[in-house]
Amino acid sequence: MKLEKLGEFGLIERFKKFIPLDSSVIKGTGDDCAVLEYSKDKYQLFTCDMIVEGVDFLPKEDPYLIGRKAVAISVSDIAACAGIPRHCVVSLGMPRNKTVEFVDKLLKGMLSIAREFKINLVGGDLSCSQRLVIDVSILGLVQKSKLVLRSTAKVGDKIFVTGNLGGSIHSKHLKFTPRVKESQYLARNFKVNSMIDISDGFIQDLRHILYQSKAGAVIYEKMIPQSPKAKNLNDALYSGEDFELIFTLSAGEAKKLILSGNKTFKMVGEVCSEKCGLVLVDKTGKKNKLADKGFKHF
Amino acid sequence: MKLEKLGEFGLIERFKKFIPLDSSVIKGTGDDCAVLEYSKDKYQLFTCDMIVEGVDFLPKEDPYLIGRKAVAISVSDIAACAGIPRHCVVSLGMPRNKTVEFVDKLLKGMLSIAREFKINLVGGDLSCSQRLVIDVSILGLVQKSKLVLRSTAKVGDKIFVTGNLGGSIHSKHLKFTPRVKESQYLARNFKVNSMIDISDGFIQDLRHILYQSKAGAVIYEKMIPQSPKAKNLNDALYSGEDFELIFTLSAGEAKKLILSGNKTFKMVGEVCSEKCGLVLVDKTGKKNKLADKGFKHF
Repeated sequence: MKLEKLGEFGLIERFKKFIPLDSSVIKGTGDDCAVLEYSKDKYQLFTCDMIVEGVDFLPKEDPYLIGRKAVAISVSDIAACAGIPRHCVVSLGMPRNKTVEFVDKLLKGMLSIAREFKINLVGGDLSCSQRLVIDVSILGLVQKSKLVLRSTAKVGDKIFVTGNLGGSIHSKHLKFTPRVKESQYLARNFKVNSMIDISDGFIQDLRHILYQSKAGAVIYEKMIPQSPKAKNLNDALYSGEDFELIFTLSAGEAKKLILSGNKTFKMVGEVCSEKCGLVLVDKTGKKNKLADKGFKHF
Repeated sequence: MKLEKLGEFGLIERFKKFIPLDSSVIKGTGDDCAVLEYSKDKYQLFTCDMIVEGVDFLPKEDPYLIGRKAVAISVSDIAACAGIPRHCVVSLGMPRNKTVEFVDKLLKGMLSIAREFKINLVGGDLSCSQRLVIDVSILGLVQKSKLVLRSTAKVGDKIFVTGNLGGSIHSKHLKFTPRVKESQYLARNFKVNSMIDISDGFIQDLRHILYQSKAGAVIYEKMIPQSPKAKNLNDALYSGEDFELIFTLSAGEAKKLILSGNKTFKMVGEVCSEKCGLVLVDKTGKKNKLADKGFKHF
């Protein structure tokens, strides 16, 4: 059987069932981060992200922005669990013909994110590779009471996003700011029921929340904050690498957020029972079941 | 300037000086693992290792052994700091044409090491890549009083290895057992002054200890435990990926180890002052300064 037949998520499911975990693991694969016992009041978050030339960035792109992206996508995963990023290590697979100047720019890009979010870059590995490949593993911390997972959305929750959707294909994917500040604001002031970052596309990532929470959702087209750079609604719904956060709040908490006057967060729909599936209400009020598409690696 | 001119270690030195670290980092880049504050009596160890098809393994090799190696080399780094491996995440860059059966074997190899060393495989990332690339990041724990670094060898220390050298090119590099048990035995029973695992070759890795400890060394050819699979002395001295440990003990501790009758550990030489350099005494008693060679990525 070829990998593309099984698909990325089929493969991950296949992985999961073989893996024995001890009691130090609060949450293994299947969320934005692994969650590990750490101290009396904190969990440690641990995750990795690999980016590959020709898939996640083009060879012609600015190495500063490539380095920046490599670290930023891992930071985004920490934000999605309401954590603070702390330490990272970087593995670089470098083509032999790259110049030292190229690596310097790559590193400057990485350090720009590390400095912005006070992350310690504590180690790395350097290999020779035909195409540039960068893997960043990151550790973060989260107050136990503030941890947010994908699997805990509740029927009746309101669904929010942290910003405009659909701008990523126009270079936002190289320049986005991981939503650590927003996620910390939410964790401090609200009971967040579930959260994920948008890497594969709004709809596909919302599906991860719904699948893991055994729930459905209704999304309202008129409420989707479409990026001025998105060509159309489909861009906003399906294009990958927006790196905004999707999160859900109970109706009461949602009301509190809306009344706070904070315009950063946009409500886009609500969680319903599993059997209602994933429905988009268009501008005329018509309900449409949404197809399962979005970025797939395989 | 091309990367090969600067070399891997030049590049790492170049990286280091740009990187700001806070007080939670006991040791950043430059050792087998980063060392982080963790609890009252323990440090956390954190490291990553990337292996690439065509460099670290051949496409024809058994995927079970490739998966096994990917995890084992990270475990070896934890052992080199006298730590216990605890949690790991795996990033896979997979060519599109690989079969599910291939991935299953890869995973089984990874899990064989995870089970053997009671490591929790807690997460991963799956990307599409032209050639197979695997990056494993691992967390470990070490008692603060037992941590061993590269930089703390002392003049007068005796130098030991945990096993035969020079067998790696004959498939040992795919089948080696990381020396966690040996390292734990040493940490429990002796004051180990410095330690490193052999990834680039005995001499080159010994040089890391010497360089960081500002010391020199004398090695005795007749004491080198040459693998029956090594063609000659050069194999034992320079071939990479033996994954034995090199460690140093004070003369007193060395005597204790030798008198213990434990035959696992072989003394091969002693640490001397920096100005004596790195010297090999051959079987006739002649002293030879050793050239700086061994596996280089660039």
